[in-house]
Amino acid sequence: MTGVRVAGVGLTHFGKHPERTGRDLFGEAADRAFADAGVDRSAVEGLNYGNFMGELAEHQGHQGPLMAEAAGVTAPATRYESACASSGTALREAVKDVRNGEADVVLVGGAERMNNLGTAGTTEALAIAADDLYEVRAGMTFPAAYALMARAYFEAYGGSREDLAEIAVKNHDNALENEYAQFQRAISVEEALDAPMVADPLGLYDACPITDGASAVVLVSDEYADDHGLEAPVAVTGTGQGGDKMALQDRQYLARTPAAERAAAEAYDDAGVGPADVAAAEVHDCFTIAEVLALEALDFYAPGEAIGAAARGETTRDGDRPVNLSGGLKAKGHPVGATGTSQVVEMTRLLRGDHPNSDAVDGDVGVTHNAGGTVASTTVHVLEVTE
Amino acid sequence: MTGVRVAGVGLTHFGKHPERTGRDLFGEAADRAFADAGVDRSAVEGLNYGNFMGELAEHQGHQGPLMAEAAGVTAPATRYESACASSGTALREAVKDVRNGEADVVLVGGAERMNNLGTAGTTEALAIAADDLYEVRAGMTFPAAYALMARAYFEAYGGSREDLAEIAVKNHDNALENEYAQFQRAISVEEALDAPMVADPLGLYDACPITDGASAVVLVSDEYADDHGLEAPVAVTGTGQGGDKMALQDRQYLARTPAAERAAAEAYDDAGVGPADVAAAEVHDCFTIAEVLALEALDFYAPGEAIGAAARGETTRDGDRPVNLSGGLKAKGHPVGATGTSQVVEMTRLLRGDHPNSDAVDGDVGVTHNAGGTVASTTVHVLEVTE
Repeated sequence: MTGVRVAGVGLTHFGKHPERTGRDLFGEAADRAFADAGVDRSAVEGLNYGNFMGELAEHQGHQGPLMAEAAGVTAPATRYESACASSGTALREAVKDVRNGEADVVLVGGAERMNNLGTAGTTEALAIAADDLYEVRAGMTFPAAYALMARAYFEAYGGSREDLAEIAVKNHDNALENEYAQFQRAISVEEALDAPMVADPLGLYDACPITDGASAVVLVSDEYADDHGLEAPVAVTGTGQGGDKMALQDRQYLARTPAAERAAAEAYDDAGVGPADVAAAEVHDCFTIAEVLALEALDFYAPGEAIGAAARGETTRDGDRPVNLSGGLKAKGHPVGATGTSQVVEMTRLLRGDHPNSDAVDGDVGVTHNAGGTVASTTVHVLEVTE
Repeated sequence: MTGVRVAGVGLTHFGKHPERTGRDLFGEAADRAFADAGVDRSAVEGLNYGNFMGELAEHQGHQGPLMAEAAGVTAPATRYESACASSGTALREAVKDVRNGEADVVLVGGAERMNNLGTAGTTEALAIAADDLYEVRAGMTFPAAYALMARAYFEAYGGSREDLAEIAVKNHDNALENEYAQFQRAISVEEALDAPMVADPLGLYDACPITDGASAVVLVSDEYADDHGLEAPVAVTGTGQGGDKMALQDRQYLARTPAAERAAAEAYDDAGVGPADVAAAEVHDCFTIAEVLALEALDFYAPGEAIGAAARGETTRDGDRPVNLSGGLKAKGHPVGATGTSQVVEMTRLLRGDHPNSDAVDGDVGVTHNAGGTVASTTVHVLEVTE
């Protein structure tokens, strides 16, 4: 079993690009990843690609071969769809392939085009990540679903809208120097609390924006990196995946995310590390409450204790374990299919020292947490500096 | 590296079931696969699920966790989408997982609900497997695309509508005793030739029908089969995947399918067999011409020589190497996401002797060939009797 190294990473700007196609976005992210890696695209043995709503946004399925072409690779390509965890899932399968000797070089990535659908169209398209028969037809939207989870959390453990606002403020603050972020703008707790209510207790600033963008990562085996003299100081040392019942109503408990707990436990075990070893995390904060649930699933906090983490300064840039130094989904943006690998792009840069917020990371171990739906699908990855 | 055994297989009836949901169909196929396997569903460590058009037909993405629930498994689930090769791709990844010790028991399958969309709606939904910008917007549909491939083939090598009709007649004939088939009805060459033209030279009987259905396969490691005393005489000994440019216009040559050639070469090499060893094949005959192209890609025939195979009786039930003994997509039906694993269901039964057409198989090696789009994505698997 070989180690798996991140040879190169690439992103497009995350934001409103309604005039750009998914293939156009992914081609740009892939170009940057190859340039960063110093790997020739002819070396690629497989493309694992994540996309969620291409059928609805671009009338385009079967994106594997299309995206291989956009990236200039001739290797077989597979499209993964696990809602908002699509490219995290694509990454996990690529990590296994490299580790098990199925391939030495794999391109992983994802893209999503959303803004061309408009706000109502996007909300409706996002709803296909929930149970159409038992949630969507009853009027459930994702803000409403996460609002239920927030209410359940508040009821079980306490917490307030102010606590959630502090998370939004932190993540906006983290994105200030991130040129790829949709929002490079500071906000205040007051602004967050004064923003229009979306689904009580979640206001507009508790939700991530609608984003177009793409991400790409070139994974290589230790042997390939060594043989080709690649600078690839960051390795993916742990991978985990967890599932849960699709519909919230079928869950035992709304204030925890067992799928993410299972994914995290597997990833830690796989890497041989524990939560105490983790210096920084990129987590799936599609809503502010989701960051709270993620931090508990990752076992950084006991259930009920993560809610005040941002307010206490523990997860801020100068905290002990900064979270979402990229700006997170909240401020950097959430082009659904691109998010899982974009977290790995950000964490790789954070760990290797070329991210605007690298100075905030005090350690060699980072974690990425990517969740689909109301955390019915989750992948967690551990990244470590190995050189 | 362990061997990979097919412990159990299950299908729903393939046909018109517009009132049944995808989850309902898949649950039934999975139930049958577990019963056939004698494996408890609690042993499953992963579900790899193939579906193509759920977003359009059922307003349902994120089907992994939904289908895990339908199958009664709590393991993490991943949805694969490679157009008509979706579940073949899901199978390939599961084969690698079992082989590499990532899991001992994996459930693989797929389902598709199509008839609820109607004929025009299905044709439009199927079109998302082609390039939306450069094919679909120019008016391309799949019958038209395969008609172009048939014309290119006829021009390069010769062949006639009669040759294609013989393939339809053969596949209908093969399905007569297959209780899962959409059509259990013999047709004549005359009937096929007299049927309405769809896209010259392809008539109605050159095309597979619109089908609802599901398929499921339980894969286990050699060790698991031995430890649990399972009857699992058939192994998956080879897997291959190939990709090509998405749009026909970007291909060098329309009368061959290089993606399938690459997938076949890889699968043969992986299994350590050659085309001469193959006793029977289930190939992706979405149109009659597609069977011809498949037989050449699988290297059963040199380019230009497979066109007369059915007419010469070489691929019929009493031929040397029968093809599509299930009835193929043409007569058994083509619920898109279910097709790849349904081919493995059929081949497993053919090889282990409990298929109505098992007597036609003279040997221990079978091949399945599953293609997406105009063969821009292909997986090929080799199955062998090992006990």
